[in-house]
Amino acid sequence: MVWIQRTLTLEPRPRGFHLVTHEIEQAVPELGDLAVGLAHVFIQHTSASLTLNENASPDVRRDFESWANEAVPESAAYWSHVLEGSDDMPAHVKASLFGPSLTLPIADGRFALGTWQGIYLCEHRDRGGSRRVVVTAFGDAST
Amino acid sequence: MVWIQRTLTLEPRPRGFHLVTHEIEQAVPELGDLAVGLAHVFIQHTSASLTLNENASPDVRRDFESWANEAVPESAAYWSHVLEGSDDMPAHVKASLFGPSLTLPIADGRFALGTWQGIYLCEHRDRGGSRRVVVTAFGDAST
Amino acid sequence: MVWIQRTLTLEPRPRGFHLVTHEIEQAVPELGDLAVGLAHVFIQHTSASLTLNENASPDVRRDFESWANEAVPESAAYWSHVLEGSDDMPAHVKASLFGPSLTLPIADGRFALGTWQGIYLCEHRDRGGSRRVVVTAFGDAST
Repeated sequence: MVWIQRTLTLEPRPRGFHLVTHEIEQAVPELGDLAVGLAHVFIQHTSASLTLNENASPDVRRDFESWANEAVPESAAYWSHVLEGSDDMPAHVKASLFGPSLTLPIADGRFALGTWQGIYLCEHRDRGGSRRVVVTAFGDAST
Repeated sequence: MVWIQRTLTLEPRPRGFHLVTHEIEQAVPELGDLAVGLAHVFIQHTSASLTLNENASPDVRRDFESWANEAVPESAAYWSHVLEGSDDMPAHVKASLFGPSLTLPIADGRFALGTWQGIYLCEHRDRGGSRRVVVTAFGDAST
Repeated sequence: MVWIQRTLTLEPRPRGFHLVTHEIEQAVPELGDLAVGLAHVFIQHTSASLTLNENASPDVRRDFESWANEAVPESAAYWSHVLEGSDDMPAHVKASLFGPSLTLPIADGRFALGTWQGIYLCEHRDRGGSRRVVVTAFGDAST
């Protein structure tokens, strides 16, 4: 049984959905030694999130941002927590909708993703700053 | 420590929410040997998803489809990624809302689900085709 | 490799979002012995859910409830599963949106949460009653 745990810092990104698969992979090169296992990718924030989706077209990621802004509108009359800015409370809700973590299967030393799956960092604040991610991978080493 | 990892193919289903608990269980019969553990069920696609919900009434599953179509409408003016059909971009968003994976506790050789919990395959495309699912279970064998 | 699995019962709470981090932590005191690992927190119900979000301001939790009631309205004409009350079907959908489980990294004997992250019990029914949660923690003991 092998355990790998590493904290990485993702550089500040503009509000929107960003492909970060390679950054996550590069943070845990020891993954290559695992024949079978799981990787858990966890963001330590409440106004940004992680999801898996289409890794090819930038317009898919733009459409995620458009949909999210419609579904969780900044201008809604029901927000009471407004002292941190109009983007703050919607960011909290979006963060819980998409979720703070991903768990990925590991097979033959790699994330066993589908052809079109990539890891999105979902930045829900206008100025979210850098984001801390804890990657925990564990499994059985190749024999 | 026991590891079981298996890829299964779920047959094509119509757009909507489908109960697949038994298919997932049958894919990993070795589960019966685990006294304690976890099972991770992962779909390798970006336009279908997995969720847990009520395992009894078919009208609950129909209502999930109705709600999803209201919340992520095909006809919205903000979609820019439309070249793969009007059901494509909504399918991507729905897939991320419900999520690509489930992690379930294993106790005494079985998924430790609540009485009413069943695994849904959420097919968000009109013609999604067959869907690949990777089940990874691990834990301690009964003694 | 250490495995800890425990079922706890959360007392009945009113409909809304409730901070339960300490109750979850106290259920697995053996966590303190794990140098590295993961904790899986799983709710065995289909009308309540778990999420991570801001652990300080009660108005954030109130705004989650307001948003959820807008996004999944009780009065929608498309609900067909209405025999268990007008709060039932919306509760099922909300439960799948926020999700039935959280997976948290463990580092140095503690949940490796961000400063502002807390565990919410999301009670989606008017009278949900008590809620069963299975906590499964596993990892390597400190040496």
